Amino acid sequence: MKIEPIKVGKGITVTELIDQFCYSAFNARRLGQAGKIWKEMVNENAFIFLTIAGAMIPAGLREVVRGIIENGFANSIVLTGANLVHEVCESLGFHHISGSELADDVELSKKGISRIYDVYIETSAFEGVERFFMDVFGDLSGTYSSHEIIWEIGKKLENSFLRTAFDKGVPVICPTLHDSIAGLHLMLYGKNAILNYSKDTKLLLDLCSKRGKKGIVIVGGGVPKNFTLQAMLLADGFDYALQITTDSPQFGGLSGATLEEAKSWCKLKSDAKAVTVYCDATIALPLLYAYMLE
Amino acid sequence: MKIEPIKVGKGITVTELIDQFCYSAFNARRLGQAGKIWKEMVNENAFIFLTIAGAMIPAGLREVVRGIIENGFANSIVLTGANLVHEVCESLGFHHISGSELADDVELSKKGISRIYDVYIETSAFEGVERFFMDVFGDLSGTYSSHEIIWEIGKKLENSFLRTAFDKGVPVICPTLHDSIAGLHLMLYGKNAILNYSKDTKLLLDLCSKRGKKGIVIVGGGVPKNFTLQAMLLADGFDYALQITTDSPQFGGLSGATLEEAKSWCKLKSDAKAVTVYCDATIALPLLYAYMLE
Amino acid sequence: MKIEPIKVGKGITVTELIDQFCYSAFNARRLGQAGKIWKEMVNENAFIFLTIAGAMIPAGLREVVRGIIENGFANSIVLTGANLVHEVCESLGFHHISGSELADDVELSKKGISRIYDVYIETSAFEGVERFFMDVFGDLSGTYSSHEIIWEIGKKLENSFLRTAFDKGVPVICPTLHDSIAGLHLMLYGKNAILNYSKDTKLLLDLCSKRGKKGIVIVGGGVPKNFTLQAMLLADGFDYALQITTDSPQFGGLSGATLEEAKSWCKLKSDAKAVTVYCDATIALPLLYAYMLE
Amino acid sequence: MKIEPIKVGKGITVTELIDQFCYSAFNARRLGQAGKIWKEMVNENAFIFLTIAGAMIPAGLREVVRGIIENGFANSIVLTGANLVHEVCESLGFHHISGSELADDVELSKKGISRIYDVYIETSAFEGVERFFMDVFGDLSGTYSSHEIIWEIGKKLENSFLRTAFDKGVPVICPTLHDSIAGLHLMLYGKNAILNYSKDTKLLLDLCSKRGKKGIVIVGGGVPKNFTLQAMLLADGFDYALQITTDSPQFGGLSGATLEEAKSWCKLKSDAKAVTVYCDATIALPLLYAYMLE
Repeated sequence: MKIEPIKVGKGITVTELIDQFCYSAFNARRLGQAGKIWKEMVNENAFIFLTIAGAMIPAGLREVVRGIIENGFANSIVLTGANLVHEVCESLGFHHISGSELADDVELSKKGISRIYDVYIETSAFEGVERFFMDVFGDLSGTYSSHEIIWEIGKKLENSFLRTAFDKGVPVICPTLHDSIAGLHLMLYGKNAILNYSKDTKLLLDLCSKRGKKGIVIVGGGVPKNFTLQAMLLADGFDYALQITTDSPQFGGLSGATLEEAKSWCKLKSDAKAVTVYCDATIALPLLYAYMLE
Repeated sequence: MKIEPIKVGKGITVTELIDQFCYSAFNARRLGQAGKIWKEMVNENAFIFLTIAGAMIPAGLREVVRGIIENGFANSIVLTGANLVHEVCESLGFHHISGSELADDVELSKKGISRIYDVYIETSAFEGVERFFMDVFGDLSGTYSSHEIIWEIGKKLENSFLRTAFDKGVPVICPTLHDSIAGLHLMLYGKNAILNYSKDTKLLLDLCSKRGKKGIVIVGGGVPKNFTLQAMLLADGFDYALQITTDSPQFGGLSGATLEEAKSWCKLKSDAKAVTVYCDATIALPLLYAYMLE
Repeated sequence: MKIEPIKVGKGITVTELIDQFCYSAFNARRLGQAGKIWKEMVNENAFIFLTIAGAMIPAGLREVVRGIIENGFANSIVLTGANLVHEVCESLGFHHISGSELADDVELSKKGISRIYDVYIETSAFEGVERFFMDVFGDLSGTYSSHEIIWEIGKKLENSFLRTAFDKGVPVICPTLHDSIAGLHLMLYGKNAILNYSKDTKLLLDLCSKRGKKGIVIVGGGVPKNFTLQAMLLADGFDYALQITTDSPQFGGLSGATLEEAKSWCKLKSDAKAVTVYCDATIALPLLYAYMLE
Repeated sequence: MKIEPIKVGKGITVTELIDQFCYSAFNARRLGQAGKIWKEMVNENAFIFLTIAGAMIPAGLREVVRGIIENGFANSIVLTGANLVHEVCESLGFHHISGSELADDVELSKKGISRIYDVYIETSAFEGVERFFMDVFGDLSGTYSSHEIIWEIGKKLENSFLRTAFDKGVPVICPTLHDSIAGLHLMLYGKNAILNYSKDTKLLLDLCSKRGKKGIVIVGGGVPKNFTLQAMLLADGFDYALQITTDSPQFGGLSGATLEEAKSWCKLKSDAKAVTVYCDATIALPLLYAYMLE
């Protein structure tokens, strides 16, 4: 197939551009292929997991995640504790602020500002979150999976993809809930609750063993990637996989590992359609979501 | 300034998306800011250099480069020898082919195919290029700058940004012409020609010393970045700068160096507007160009 | 301070070289500084956490980790589930094999080989691990922290840093135990056991609230980094920190975040001594350990 | 072959460590293999090119480069203009200073300090260099290759690897001499001199066409990598190659391209022994040089 020069006209839509990316090279091509694979997942009625690591919610991707759930482009979400906590912040009306990665961090700490690269958040936001979690976790009693706890969180929020997920019955799993401020608050205020991830693993196994095809959209690696792929050690392997990452394979870590490598573990089927896009997900995910909408 | 969640609707244009990127974070924000700075360069009538390293032409960006020249978004181009050679290939009708980065390179070499990551090109293309250069370089006599040689090349091509540049009087400088197949052919067939880069440096100095503001759009670092920035050691420094790169600062190389560092050398003015986008340019440059068109 | 050219003579020891790195630049200097900071931690009797992410045990660093524990260069270990599982593999006599990152993964899977970049492991190893875990986990009854479970594992092994840690009373915490084959086996065979990470968080808080200085040596980021740093949200912040990572800050993820950023969160004290070495830990960690021995 | 855990004892030499790296994984293994390949080059009497890009001289590697030349571990050097200029600085007694990558670059520029990541150099150094080059270049008359000009430079210096190269008859080629302060000075003060890189290409071709085996040690990519590899388009291909780089293949640029890719272009022989080490060369090159000494 010939490489076709990308042609851009005034008012070009994201979809028109990404369609052309398929005929270019390097990561533009990978992005184009990712769009095609994700569309095929949806068209084939695959059950789709979206895993999210990296500070995507602080960076402004919460509406994109909500849209993905609402439109059925993902049927289960697996995310990090930090993304969960920052989504709760935003839903409660505590906002992230545009900052500078060159700021003096000691000065910031004196002002009660915590920094995530070029994003700031005020300590007061976490106090609001603490009051919210005190309330939610205080009511819990018994053994919970992370998705059951997130269910409880989601139904108490108005403006959040956690609420959308609750309303649509989309399970949201957080295999690192304990590794977040929510985890600290659960320890402090959820005295009668035990978080047992075995229940999450069982849910994952159930979902991975459903009839029909299965797909995974991986944003950024980490535990969400591994936890979801790992369930397939006890099932048949994914039919589709795409990953957006800024890690590289040559250092041996899982976040940068190729999806081919996952085939050696049978986490992907041997004929699975898979592609990795090496790109900051703050750029690539909105582009892909726009592409999915058409 | 609040981080605003990116909102994506069906049929969203690239411009509508990049406008929102300014209110997000990480490299999406950087991309949004890059768009704004480039637009300001054009609106302020700055003289704009576009420097190109990395295999952008093989990857399918030749129409984007042509459009940038045609629309006046750059007033001079500084590129690597490889991009020059591959542009000549394409103009002569020898195409780059979509390939696989996992191919067996020894097998490819037996088939007469050379690989650039996931792009293939047949050896026969270079034979066509050789005939073309034999013709062009055989006619040269005397001392030439690289841009004078590229002038000679551009006027003999039909379908090429090199021709567009020639037609519009946009100087194209190639400070690594000798470090390319064109350089080998110049040595072999341009017996009466001497390539003297001092003439390119003089042109650069003239352009950098023009009245009015000056800007630079850097794709990928390398000699094109250094050669163009360096001219400012003898002039006043750039007013605007943006860079698209996949290199990181922490290894100390120039391609990954921040534009702030360039201020210590006075290559940028102390109050220059500057931003670096850490992203594969096959994705970022078409997005920015689409943004510039509106 | 002048940059001093590195001088290398025949038979130079690692320590002699790293001492010189302090007077060079880029990541050699960072490595030299890391050595100095780690030594100061030990000399100041700081309580030191070593966090380990990335496939360090498959890559051959288990003796280095054991030596770090034995020599008191770390007083607590926080690692990923994968490193735990692969350490058990090795201790049981199942070895990792030198492989190729270019192998055909579908072929490997047919041969019962799983790949971690350029390391292979046979499926049979995991069967051995399963028998071991079936035995260990079958005996558990009640609620456990990960470090209590690892205690049980460690005391049943002979040749392992987990045993060394057990013998020396060094707590080993695995905040992603459930995100590993050990977690699957715990679910399957530890029917009477509940893994409750709140107990790990409490241990961490106790350790972080001890008298005297506290230090952290971070290999590779991930949950081990975040989980350990996060405990300091409820304590005074680390006095010393060093990180070895191959991630970069500009993508906003925690694994690549600078240690300065951690100061804005008060996870490090404002005057903490801290340095990040951007290097594959398979190279940097053995070098640093050799340096620590003198 | 089994992965062997790396064992480190007190006083371990660099060589003892790197020997073990061969049995580990990821980039430690690559570094171990690089040492073996380089030793084989020397043992087989291969003609060896060392190419140097990235700010290696400012970072303190000049004595390492000198030692490599003196011990015959390289028979020709191909470097960037910046490394040439900074070597002249040091030889003339102007030193690089240990700085901070977090400094305010506008403040630095006011103090007459230029920054290269965490290295500073005072503007006065370049004035000393200018007087030196004025002298050297003022005497030139006629057409020169870069290596002939560097010959003239080397013989006027005392304490420099350029002098060592001159004394030992080791050709030093600088295919980006014009892309450096030396290039600006050549334009200003070498009015009677023309720098013609075709003469460098001819020398390279002669060296690449010698009898016996040929090897290349690539530090950091860039023009030195391409210019040297490219000569093999007109010869038989390298028998040995090793590269130390911090670039990754997936962005398509030559600096990050695998050495396998070079086989498709026949720049390496199909059975060439080749390895890439993904590591900051300030760490990897001194380690390899120490290994070579034994």
